[in-house]
Amino acid sequence: MRVGLIGIGTVGGGTYKILTENSEEIFKKTGKKIEITMVADTNLSLAKNIVKAPVTITDDATKLIQSNEVDIVIELIGGVGISRTFVQQALENKKHVVTANKALIAMHGEELVKLAKKNNVILAYEASVAGGIPIIKAVREGLAANKIEWIAGIVNGTTNYILSEMKENNLSFNVALKQAQELGFAEADPTFDIEGIDAAHKITILASLAFGIPINFDAAYIEGITQLTQKDITYAEELGYRIKLLAITKLVSDGVELRVHPTLIPEKRLVANVNGPMNAVLVKGNMVGPTLYYGAGAGAEATASAVVADIIDITRGSTFNIPTLGFVDEYISAKKILPIEEVKSEFYLRLSMSNKAGLLAKITNIFAKNDVSIDAMVHKEISDESKDPDIFLITSKIEERKINEIIQEIESLPDNKEKIIKIRVEELN
Amino acid sequence: MRVGLIGIGTVGGGTYKILTENSEEIFKKTGKKIEITMVADTNLSLAKNIVKAPVTITDDATKLIQSNEVDIVIELIGGVGISRTFVQQALENKKHVVTANKALIAMHGEELVKLAKKNNVILAYEASVAGGIPIIKAVREGLAANKIEWIAGIVNGTTNYILSEMKENNLSFNVALKQAQELGFAEADPTFDIEGIDAAHKITILASLAFGIPINFDAAYIEGITQLTQKDITYAEELGYRIKLLAITKLVSDGVELRVHPTLIPEKRLVANVNGPMNAVLVKGNMVGPTLYYGAGAGAEATASAVVADIIDITRGSTFNIPTLGFVDEYISAKKILPIEEVKSEFYLRLSMSNKAGLLAKITNIFAKNDVSIDAMVHKEISDESKDPDIFLITSKIEERKINEIIQEIESLPDNKEKIIKIRVEELN
Repeated sequence: MRVGLIGIGTVGGGTYKILTENSEEIFKKTGKKIEITMVADTNLSLAKNIVKAPVTITDDATKLIQSNEVDIVIELIGGVGISRTFVQQALENKKHVVTANKALIAMHGEELVKLAKKNNVILAYEASVAGGIPIIKAVREGLAANKIEWIAGIVNGTTNYILSEMKENNLSFNVALKQAQELGFAEADPTFDIEGIDAAHKITILASLAFGIPINFDAAYIEGITQLTQKDITYAEELGYRIKLLAITKLVSDGVELRVHPTLIPEKRLVANVNGPMNAVLVKGNMVGPTLYYGAGAGAEATASAVVADIIDITRGSTFNIPTLGFVDEYISAKKILPIEEVKSEFYLRLSMSNKAGLLAKITNIFAKNDVSIDAMVHKEISDESKDPDIFLITSKIEERKINEIIQEIESLPDNKEKIIKIRVEELN
Repeated sequence: MRVGLIGIGTVGGGTYKILTENSEEIFKKTGKKIEITMVADTNLSLAKNIVKAPVTITDDATKLIQSNEVDIVIELIGGVGISRTFVQQALENKKHVVTANKALIAMHGEELVKLAKKNNVILAYEASVAGGIPIIKAVREGLAANKIEWIAGIVNGTTNYILSEMKENNLSFNVALKQAQELGFAEADPTFDIEGIDAAHKITILASLAFGIPINFDAAYIEGITQLTQKDITYAEELGYRIKLLAITKLVSDGVELRVHPTLIPEKRLVANVNGPMNAVLVKGNMVGPTLYYGAGAGAEATASAVVADIIDITRGSTFNIPTLGFVDEYISAKKILPIEEVKSEFYLRLSMSNKAGLLAKITNIFAKNDVSIDAMVHKEISDESKDPDIFLITSKIEERKINEIIQEIESLPDNKEKIIKIRVEELN
């Protein structure tokens, strides 16, 4: 099996390393030789530094794609610009494609899956979700006997590292972000990570695999962690919860939930204890119950581990009869993706009110008349006596539209001093 | 695809349930109809209670195996007696076989894998290890790019439930076992579970998949949890550890470790927080680093989830080119399985000595002259003043043969009062 690599950056370098250093091991598992015959990168001197003869190096990816010395094209450039063109060209040239590109699959997966089918080649994308964790395979094959009920994952290492640092070392978001950048856990422009877009790409792909729905990134609700304060992390802890950036997709009676946002989860759940840059995905099947998959979600070698697993699958010929998105094409059917206002969940609210007699009664009355019960409520004295106490609470399950109305009503009380902080809660049971 | 089910007990009933209740979902994922055509069980009335027409019910499994209305034979009787014969017959009759039988694979896997290959049919056994967790697939396919360095798993729900109860509720082993039996987490004869045999079956299978070695159950070192006291669980906690029955296999320079025993693991590891009857398997690959797989390791539907995943793989035709044990036959080669005396690990020791001046110096001298350092040591006053204090400690890494000599030397001191308690420690990093 002859492999052509487009992009010899972090993951490309990792892929080259694995196929070189583990080649004997991989040969014993496949019975076939897998060799990198070509590498394409615009940075020729970088490529020459990494890649040894007799691999052909080029700065023209199209040449690689069209070469008759390449059976599988590995796209590791990222983004949805030129990478999309290269993947299209490769599939049209009847080459199998392996990619780690979540944005590409989340935004143009439908079209590329069709193109692969038309040309009778494989499009493999294990590395696009949760790096080295074989989560695509788990959902598509390992749990195939189940109706998936929901998936909830920590699928972005950067934000999990930042949240872990905020909690462990009492850092503000900005300080934690800066530290993450210095340590290489966050990029110079961290927007895609901290705004939740990267996590949304990944959960969009998993939603399609889980529920047999078309890939629909545009319908995802996305909220990042930039507004999160150290105070709420501490208060959540007092209530027995941790705050994680959770990517969630859930099958409900009137459609599918697809959302990324900071979420309070009970600290006793295994996934609440996933710290640093690690990833973990919780999958609930109707027969198997909850299962969890944990590992490195990023990094050269971890991500390349998934890329090479796809190459091995293709070499073994084991994925030719598995539908790319888990469901046979004709049975993929759209379901309504719920707007966030229609999603039901529990909520953590933090109120900032003047410390007046009868205030708590006023607030609890508003909840009561809206049929919302309060599961936990803390009235927190602030050490600085000149300040009013914080009130924070967790509600029962309620539609988001309704909690927004309640928030508005409380905020319109004359005693209200600041915008109410709202964070969603998931019990994950 | 026509399925014949031998054994309609717990897992058999679960398999029937999934193939019935999730049939539409499974059809959408395979594009093929999977139907149970025959069920064989010696308990005909039980079978008739569960199975609906038009399924043929028989008490003669051989009839099922030879029927030309059966393409896949599902063996769910367990044990290594008649089940072995049935699986042999099925393979010889060129039927694919799916089994949840860990004892059978661990003890006769070699012979059955050969028989399957000779007859050009699939032998699938995902359900034999860790129930509903797709761990066979993860090691054999998802992590195939890696040299596996080690696997450490909680793969027996009964013992994990007992240990969780001993820790959480301060129960003795016997009380916790009784409770587990009452709740259905332990069988009337719990020997296979509490003596570690079941866990050893499972880790033997994983060792073969991980390292490309023949299945070699006889070489496994097995120690159960029956000798474990509440006291050591508490002391371990004081040192920052939890005690779990860990099944471990590790590639080391002079061979492979294959062992099951109670183990202290740092409480901060995710796997240390797996409680109740749940299972979790930690797999360390040389490229991906540590990954963890968590879920229900037993129970009708969870185990059947893995059985049906195998049926789906066969129906999709996706496993025909994957070596049954992960490595191509001609590259499976034996490695020395280390006798426990040659295994290096850290140790927790609990000493019971007269409370005399200079005693600690005596003990530490014995360690020092043997080049063993002590990482943590506690001298514990017992509330009852008439009793001597407990001493417990954790050593640096040392060969087991050597720690046994040190233990003997300490036990021969005149101040020594009881047999020293020794429990292995794994840092899992």
